[in-house]
Amino acid sequence: MRYELYYWPSIQGRGEFVRLALEAAGAAYVDVARRPAKHGGVPALLKLLNGRALKHPPFSPPILKAGKLIIAQTANILFYLGGRHRLAPKDEAGRLWVHQLQLTLADFLGEIHDTHHPIAGSLYYEEQKKEAARRAATFVRERAPKYLGYFERVLARNHSNKHLVGKSLSYADLSLFQVVAGLHYAFPRMMRRLGKKHPRVMALHDAVARRPKIAAYLASRRRIPFNQQGIFRRYPELDR
Amino acid sequence: MRYELYYWPSIQGRGEFVRLALEAAGAAYVDVARRPAKHGGVPALLKLLNGRALKHPPFSPPILKAGKLIIAQTANILFYLGGRHRLAPKDEAGRLWVHQLQLTLADFLGEIHDTHHPIAGSLYYEEQKKEAARRAATFVRERAPKYLGYFERVLARNHSNKHLVGKSLSYADLSLFQVVAGLHYAFPRMMRRLGKKHPRVMALHDAVARRPKIAAYLASRRRIPFNQQGIFRRYPELDR
Repeated sequence: MRYELYYWPSIQGRGEFVRLALEAAGAAYVDVARRPAKHGGVPALLKLLNGRALKHPPFSPPILKAGKLIIAQTANILFYLGGRHRLAPKDEAGRLWVHQLQLTLADFLGEIHDTHHPIAGSLYYEEQKKEAARRAATFVRERAPKYLGYFERVLARNHSNKHLVGKSLSYADLSLFQVVAGLHYAFPRMMRRLGKKHPRVMALHDAVARRPKIAAYLASRRRIPFNQQGIFRRYPELDR
Repeated sequence: MRYELYYWPSIQGRGEFVRLALEAAGAAYVDVARRPAKHGGVPALLKLLNGRALKHPPFSPPILKAGKLIIAQTANILFYLGGRHRLAPKDEAGRLWVHQLQLTLADFLGEIHDTHHPIAGSLYYEEQKKEAARRAATFVRERAPKYLGYFERVLARNHSNKHLVGKSLSYADLSLFQVVAGLHYAFPRMMRRLGKKHPRVMALHDAVARRPKIAAYLASRRRIPFNQQGIFRRYPELDR
């Protein structure tokens, strides 16, 4: 089966967490909205989002088509893929634990997004710069250390020390990699300081980046570069 | 087995979504932090949050102890309870769909919270009133109609029309009930207008409230009243 991923074509965004899982699994997939319009493109994404015939309409992308299944919500898609591609433990306790970590990463990601959009996603950054400065200050001072400290603790308590869960790669590892990579891009100054305090988190980021399938993906055109339209944006005035 | 729920004792908050599922299921549970300190209380919650021996530390409450399992993240707890207490379909497609709806409700809830706390959870509302007014305006005008419209559409496309998923109660129905109840409390003016436009959502709210187990719960002391410390707060200046 070839998966179909539907996500905005110009940003990593939340779709990137799904791409990383598909790439790590070596799964066959089409990144539909990145294809030319005659083979999909954004029209295909919009059709799926607005389709009136869909019994289970998604609220927003990313959306994964897996055979007859149409699954939305990043963590939900990863839960599904994790069970199919050995990116999560098989036992119930392990599956719930990986999912719990993923949902905590989703909360972290929401707060990262809101550093530059604290008022409304429908407004430009320039229209909420003042509020963003205030929100980002708290993020840098309180929230980022709290989340990174949490994941450092989880790694320290796992015997393997190299993965969040057990002895092998899970989708939560991939997602933590992505969040750390994004923070390096968006908050380089903060990360120079926080990186030293969270050596296990940084080591996990580096180890994931070195995995052959992930390294090949990151070097490929399939990886959209970080940019100023995504969740992670580099505004030096927010990185103090 | 008697479940143990750990959540802040003075607010409904995210714990309420778990309480509603436990109540609808008729499950035996202890609301640990609401007991006197000698039988639990907040010290027991803090111990669980800060416990250094815990292999799977939670980031924040609610936390559910189910035998040896310690589960955090609201949607994750509901996924677990849904499978055990017939609050979700048994087949994979159905379980993923209910979870997808729950995660969308979690996004909605996050935006509701941020109407009064757009800058930082660690600051008082009074310290971010100006920003809150701006954020709430967008919420009332764009976001609330978008989310309510979405759930109205999901109900319209489900044959039963009375539940979000299939023909019986799921944890997503309970959560949608709670969100609508909270919006009635926090944004009565907005809801007078939006209620009329979303009759199926309002009917689901009413039907859940009338279910014998839920009605008994809502009338009991176990239900903490809405108040100005929770996620749903009534600030008339935000409800325009």
